[in-house]
Amino acid sequence: RRGEMAKSTQLIDNEVFRAYATYAGIVLIKMMLMSLITAYFRITRKAFVNPEDTESFGKGENAKKYLRTDPDVERARRVHLNDLENIVPFVGIGLLYALSGPELSTALLHFRIFAGARILHTFAYLIPLPQPSRGLSWAVGYSVTFSMAYKVLKTAWLL
Amino acid sequence: RRGEMAKSTQLIDNEVFRAYATYAGIVLIKMMLMSLITAYFRITRKAFVNPEDTESFGKGENAKKYLRTDPDVERARRVHLNDLENIVPFVGIGLLYALSGPELSTALLHFRIFAGARILHTFAYLIPLPQPSRGLSWAVGYSVTFSMAYKVLKTAWLL
Amino acid sequence: RRGEMAKSTQLIDNEVFRAYATYAGIVLIKMMLMSLITAYFRITRKAFVNPEDTESFGKGENAKKYLRTDPDVERARRVHLNDLENIVPFVGIGLLYALSGPELSTALLHFRIFAGARILHTFAYLIPLPQPSRGLSWAVGYSVTFSMAYKVLKTAWLL
Repeated sequence: RRGEMAKSTQLIDNEVFRAYATYAGIVLIKMMLMSLITAYFRITRKAFVNPEDTESFGKGENAKKYLRTDPDVERARRVHLNDLENIVPFVGIGLLYALSGPELSTALLHFRIFAGARILHTFAYLIPLPQPSRGLSWAVGYSVTFSMAYKVLKTAWLL
Repeated sequence: RRGEMAKSTQLIDNEVFRAYATYAGIVLIKMMLMSLITAYFRITRKAFVNPEDTESFGKGENAKKYLRTDPDVERARRVHLNDLENIVPFVGIGLLYALSGPELSTALLHFRIFAGARILHTFAYLIPLPQPSRGLSWAVGYSVTFSMAYKVLKTAWLL
Repeated sequence: RRGEMAKSTQLIDNEVFRAYATYAGIVLIKMMLMSLITAYFRITRKAFVNPEDTESFGKGENAKKYLRTDPDVERARRVHLNDLENIVPFVGIGLLYALSGPELSTALLHFRIFAGARILHTFAYLIPLPQPSRGLSWAVGYSVTFSMAYKVLKTAWLL
């Protein structure tokens, strides 16, 4: 397997890069699952935003009553937006971090804490757990990304 | 041209990576065009959200009446947000996929189907076409990204 | 320091890539700071969206009155979303651009103008400055990203 990959590029043979690819893949999949959770709430709560989505419920007023907001749908959408605001910077900064030559153990520590914190954040937000569980899990992921950004800027700095 | 690039990095000489760069560029440009479509609807429908944007329409109540929502503006904004939720994961996972050593023909199949599905999705959402055209085009792009993520995790897995 | 990095990958030794890493890091950090600005306005204006966030203010109706929107909070959220719509494409296209073999001086020109324009855009949006300051700073960053995308597609084109 490694031989086949070496033909195209050596980057994936680097252990830090492989760890990055694994965790970036996991948190991006986690973020994408929010689409399914939002769709699940839209369908079970019958709360839609596009008129064309309610046409199967009938015509006119009968369909229009399903064009409404629902607290569970809105909550799932907020989790998704929060993921965009936090996971996307992690994926961008994490790539540069993985290319900046960190120790494998240090890199794994960053990636594992970030992924764990974001998974906790999703549960804390969706259930919801009492604060400060959501706030703390958010702050942990945020701090990990800043720590990686510091290493990137220290290594690459060329203004 | 290839000689000049080889001086800086060989990555762009890899055919799978070139295909990735082409399709990632195309779908990111498509996503960015949503800003112009939203701006077009805001101006033609005179529906703004920032008070400073309506000052050219006069002072006081005359300007305030343009601080309102419009169905076409909101629809364009939803397309843009849906692009962020789907095109951004494609760009991140697609990069790792391109570096994981897929066959060029398999990679092109993934990239072409994704780009086609997202362009169809935009038309299905904006016109709008009756469902399930928007739902199906969304699901196709979503599945392609998952297929790439599976290949990335299978190749890189280092937890 | 360079010796240690060379062990893992040579990419970070490329000057254009180092410049990209620096500016991508800066604009991603700038984007992430919007979370803190939104949180600051939510706390000082006492305007929250999640019931669990207002529980420290008391029970029942006393806490419910803080579940409201506030103009400053909404403005900060719009800046954050605008950053997602513009900085994320810059980071994706900029990476491909950095790997497409541009001259260092040309690349620095693109990165510096983009970063400057987005920092100006944030101030123009938050203060807010009269239009067209926000519109112009947005358009400058947008144009820089298109210029980079053009170079990427010209270099990599493989459909």
